[in-house]
Amino acid sequence: MDKQQQDALKKAAGIEAAKFIKDGMVAGLGTGSTVRFLVDELGRRTQEEGLQFTGVTTSRRTAEQAKGYGIKIVDVDDVDHIDISIDGADEVDKNFNGIKGGGAALLWEKIVNENSNYNMWIVDASKVVDLIGQFPLPVEVIPYGSGHVLKKFEEKGYKPVLRKGADGTEVRTDENNFIIDLHMDRIEQPHDLAEDLINTVGVVEHGLFLNRVDKVIVGDPNGPRILTVSED
Amino acid sequence: MDKQQQDALKKAAGIEAAKFIKDGMVAGLGTGSTVRFLVDELGRRTQEEGLQFTGVTTSRRTAEQAKGYGIKIVDVDDVDHIDISIDGADEVDKNFNGIKGGGAALLWEKIVNENSNYNMWIVDASKVVDLIGQFPLPVEVIPYGSGHVLKKFEEKGYKPVLRKGADGTEVRTDENNFIIDLHMDRIEQPHDLAEDLINTVGVVEHGLFLNRVDKVIVGDPNGPRILTVSED
Repeated sequence: MDKQQQDALKKAAGIEAAKFIKDGMVAGLGTGSTVRFLVDELGRRTQEEGLQFTGVTTSRRTAEQAKGYGIKIVDVDDVDHIDISIDGADEVDKNFNGIKGGGAALLWEKIVNENSNYNMWIVDASKVVDLIGQFPLPVEVIPYGSGHVLKKFEEKGYKPVLRKGADGTEVRTDENNFIIDLHMDRIEQPHDLAEDLINTVGVVEHGLFLNRVDKVIVGDPNGPRILTVSED
Repeated sequence: MDKQQQDALKKAAGIEAAKFIKDGMVAGLGTGSTVRFLVDELGRRTQEEGLQFTGVTTSRRTAEQAKGYGIKIVDVDDVDHIDISIDGADEVDKNFNGIKGGGAALLWEKIVNENSNYNMWIVDASKVVDLIGQFPLPVEVIPYGSGHVLKKFEEKGYKPVLRKGADGTEVRTDENNFIIDLHMDRIEQPHDLAEDLINTVGVVEHGLFLNRVDKVIVGDPNGPRILTVSED
């Protein structure tokens, strides 16, 4: 699949998901290339159809994009709860175990997810996998002492790489932290790994999203399809 | 005990602890009023006795104090390991369960503690308790979404209070996060509480230091005494 085809699938998923946002809702808006299409569609509906809703975003980037369309954006602490959040994902398996954070926004994404009554992901078909882990798992860490965290992860065989930008300096998150990507290839025991990561001193949050999504919309060449969680 | 007496005990503990720092060591230097006396003594020995060691600090405050004495201070990531760290504590029980973070430096304190071969605390006698929890337990949280974390803690009966400065604004840590103090009074199950806190989305670190110290020096009116961990 080339990038143009993939973008068409992302766009279809984004437009489909936008239908779930209704007048008066508080909606969580994620981050990433698929969510960009969602926000474009919500912007169109705001301007052309007079849609009125309040958005809470998982990154400054998404906030800026939405505000550009005149969408009202507030801080997560300014609302009691979020009715529905829509976000992308880097990988998701049939049990709805997912990896997020390719765009370095996993911390705010998890905070918004945690405070949402209903969570939906929109992905193109390439993100649906049998076993997560081929996509490097992002871990947000405090810069102070991050060299020691990296060493610990190496010793555990997690294949960590400190994320750097094109200019060779460390990527900084919205909270000014570093990202370490774990190139594990196959994550057989995601719950055990999550437990180990969150208990590592210096780790702020990790990109494993386990049992955190209610519905997944997949942009497929045959049209968007809705994934339901497998019970086996 | 009045403040002058308490300061005398803190100073005695600090001077006693300073004896453990030898030429050539990498030493972790904590934060707080007792550690100030330790650093004063290490500064005196550096200037008068030519003591040479490398310090890694748990806060910018301590780094500045130490540099003022000409002590060489490096980043925790610039050293392979730390030989010994000396820090204060807000409370410690006979099983060496402790609370730290009254000075808002718990995150760097835990990072330095984690990377030290040997950890020592220096406290005045008032900090040694039967059961921890009377001292409010500090929890470092990401500002984004902190209102929801506060609400969750309230629902759980943790009696949380967002820490504010004299000017009425939120206290910021060295990592620019907020501190929520839990006024629990009695912490009967510290391990369960630690597990719950670290798994709360938005929590960066908490001030429970469990099984993290090898020796405690107590400034006592009869002279500094060394506490050993009780096995019962």
